[in-house]
Amino acid sequence: MTTISPFAPKHLARLPGIPGVRLAACAAGIRYPGRIDLLLALFEPGTQVAGVLTQSKTASAPVEWCRKHLPHGQARALVVNSGNSNAFTGKRGREAVHATAKAAATAADCLEADVYIASTGVIGEPLDAAKFTGRLAELAASAKEDAFEAAAHAIMTTDTYPKLATRTAKIDGVEVTINGIAKGAGMIAPDMATMLGFLFTDAAIEAPALAAMLLPAADATFNAITIDGDTSTSDTLLLFATGQAHKRGAPRIAAADDARLDDFQRALREVMKDLALQIVKDGEGLTKFVTLHVTGAESDRAARVIARSIANSPLVKTALAGEDPNWGRIVMAVGKAGEAADRDRMAIDFGDIAVAQNGEVANSYREERGAAYMKNAELEIHVDVGVGEGRATVWTCDLTHGYIAINADYRS
Amino acid sequence: MTTISPFAPKHLARLPGIPGVRLAACAAGIRYPGRIDLLLALFEPGTQVAGVLTQSKTASAPVEWCRKHLPHGQARALVVNSGNSNAFTGKRGREAVHATAKAAATAADCLEADVYIASTGVIGEPLDAAKFTGRLAELAASAKEDAFEAAAHAIMTTDTYPKLATRTAKIDGVEVTINGIAKGAGMIAPDMATMLGFLFTDAAIEAPALAAMLLPAADATFNAITIDGDTSTSDTLLLFATGQAHKRGAPRIAAADDARLDDFQRALREVMKDLALQIVKDGEGLTKFVTLHVTGAESDRAARVIARSIANSPLVKTALAGEDPNWGRIVMAVGKAGEAADRDRMAIDFGDIAVAQNGEVANSYREERGAAYMKNAELEIHVDVGVGEGRATVWTCDLTHGYIAINADYRS
Repeated sequence: MTTISPFAPKHLARLPGIPGVRLAACAAGIRYPGRIDLLLALFEPGTQVAGVLTQSKTASAPVEWCRKHLPHGQARALVVNSGNSNAFTGKRGREAVHATAKAAATAADCLEADVYIASTGVIGEPLDAAKFTGRLAELAASAKEDAFEAAAHAIMTTDTYPKLATRTAKIDGVEVTINGIAKGAGMIAPDMATMLGFLFTDAAIEAPALAAMLLPAADATFNAITIDGDTSTSDTLLLFATGQAHKRGAPRIAAADDARLDDFQRALREVMKDLALQIVKDGEGLTKFVTLHVTGAESDRAARVIARSIANSPLVKTALAGEDPNWGRIVMAVGKAGEAADRDRMAIDFGDIAVAQNGEVANSYREERGAAYMKNAELEIHVDVGVGEGRATVWTCDLTHGYIAINADYRS
Repeated sequence: MTTISPFAPKHLARLPGIPGVRLAACAAGIRYPGRIDLLLALFEPGTQVAGVLTQSKTASAPVEWCRKHLPHGQARALVVNSGNSNAFTGKRGREAVHATAKAAATAADCLEADVYIASTGVIGEPLDAAKFTGRLAELAASAKEDAFEAAAHAIMTTDTYPKLATRTAKIDGVEVTINGIAKGAGMIAPDMATMLGFLFTDAAIEAPALAAMLLPAADATFNAITIDGDTSTSDTLLLFATGQAHKRGAPRIAAADDARLDDFQRALREVMKDLALQIVKDGEGLTKFVTLHVTGAESDRAARVIARSIANSPLVKTALAGEDPNWGRIVMAVGKAGEAADRDRMAIDFGDIAVAQNGEVANSYREERGAAYMKNAELEIHVDVGVGEGRATVWTCDLTHGYIAINADYRS
């Protein structure tokens, strides 16, 4: 579990400070002694927030807290812990969330309603909030603008590297910054798997406009990655906008369709895609990183369903692990997706190699070429199902002995 | 791949002959030299047939053939090969099916429309029907009533043991026999994974009545097992009734709701459940056999969806492999199923051990007891989701290094 993913970035992104955001992290001993597992972020008054939360029907207590408070759109503090997800913990779980909000509100001198909370780690074990509520005041006192790397470390679980990304954008000629941190590794799948992602910007954008931009961007990035098809009870993506760039002349913007946000939207998606791909590239035990394009489906939605069926198929994923150009398993996965596909018009390409055309193996295809292609660490697979114009791209990885080893004894 | 499943039956079931059925198998060299890979079954005139076929949108050419001919309900021959599934083989695939039907019709002296065909094995490679069409005449000449064990061998792929079951039933006081053979191993999942199952009886029952009994029985047995959530392009379940028991006084029955079929329906389900559980117990690389009951769902359908979500979750399956009583992953899998569940009323039992109650860990639960229970080879898990009366049972297995090893290099 200590081997760093072969797809880890050579250098971690260096994130500049974001005016209006201060961060601090510490080791609170939530699960393992000495491991940085607690993050506090403080925001200047006026900070706006939007979020996307797990679709799970058994969402955790912190997710319920965020869902309740997001509509008012104000944020002053964020508390994140790793090591315990405070999910399926009943009344004690809700009490732990309240205790956390109360302590953070005191530390940040704000309303409890302005505190956002996320937890990740083991499900079903009571979270002893006392372990860290006493630490929040000292974290608030030591919080700094440039502590993003420590923050990214604090939210890791089985991640083998911290995930950081940053971009700048111009709003009406004024440069603003978007920073992001995320954690992933296991349980990554559609509809926000145990994925935590926190985005920070100094842009001055109202909460409803943030929300309107965040949802489609999440759909094209975080929700387009899948590692094992599992979905966590704790997925949380929050975007905080401090508005501090207004002091430098950036306009306050209330509507997501304001053309002055075009460049910001581009940068936001870039940060989110960057983080999402870092998550896949740290998939548990992966040895292959796969970009999968599905075209020719009845609709974009149908294309996404088919792409996920392929990307989540254990038989496809193990073939990838074995460097086996077993395109028959892709056909199988298309078939089981339940969406329209014309078997006799289907086509499959591995990179530039035409593997199948018109529903059978391509005349030009040679197994040796497919096998050679599969030896690449990064693979691109294109499947056309031959019925329409719908398309989707998802990113995924293979299923290996490493995944089994990590997950067969993660908790013990 | 040569290790026999630890859950294999101690002794293979001994199947008696079924009057009106003769069988023969041989090694036709379809994929591996010397491996028994071709089965011919011959039926006396008047034999009725019903079937359930894969729901895959990319079904194989043999499946299409069966789908086309099942409505007329007559059968005289069955040809099954392993080693090549003749799926995604385009025009050549259809030609191979026609050539097979023609050769079998000549060998059995019947119409091509009375020939049923099934193929299992690699997808996407052209099947050279000439390899076995020349063998069918000799197989027909040597076919015998008691060759069920050889027949079960002929349809195996990565199965580690042949699957056989038999029961008797009384119809209006006359004893009839139901024999069944099946293959499974990989790609086993809802909606008929690469599961081939063939059932034979001497009862005198018309095809529409056979069909009406077969579908619900398949739903409660073959469709209630899942190994990896994948679904094959080739799944085929056929039930042949020769009617020869009529000579001994068994009535000819045309309607499935005829009360004289009650005992036959009981026996049919028993044969099918026996075969279905044998398939799970030969799941690729399994070390645990799991019976999973879901209760308290909004409907039986919802309970099935939740049960499949749990049974197919890689994180649940790897926890089982690691003997980790990680019930939090079960909560996660309930949550991602998308069906109604009341988190704060959920309950989970491992065997007789109450693990979770009212949405949190049970007061009486001790991790040591859960861990000790997980060491059993056969596990029973009960999940109540606390919203209604819907219930379902599915059978599954764990996800191990063995599965990866088998599937990462199955084709190479």
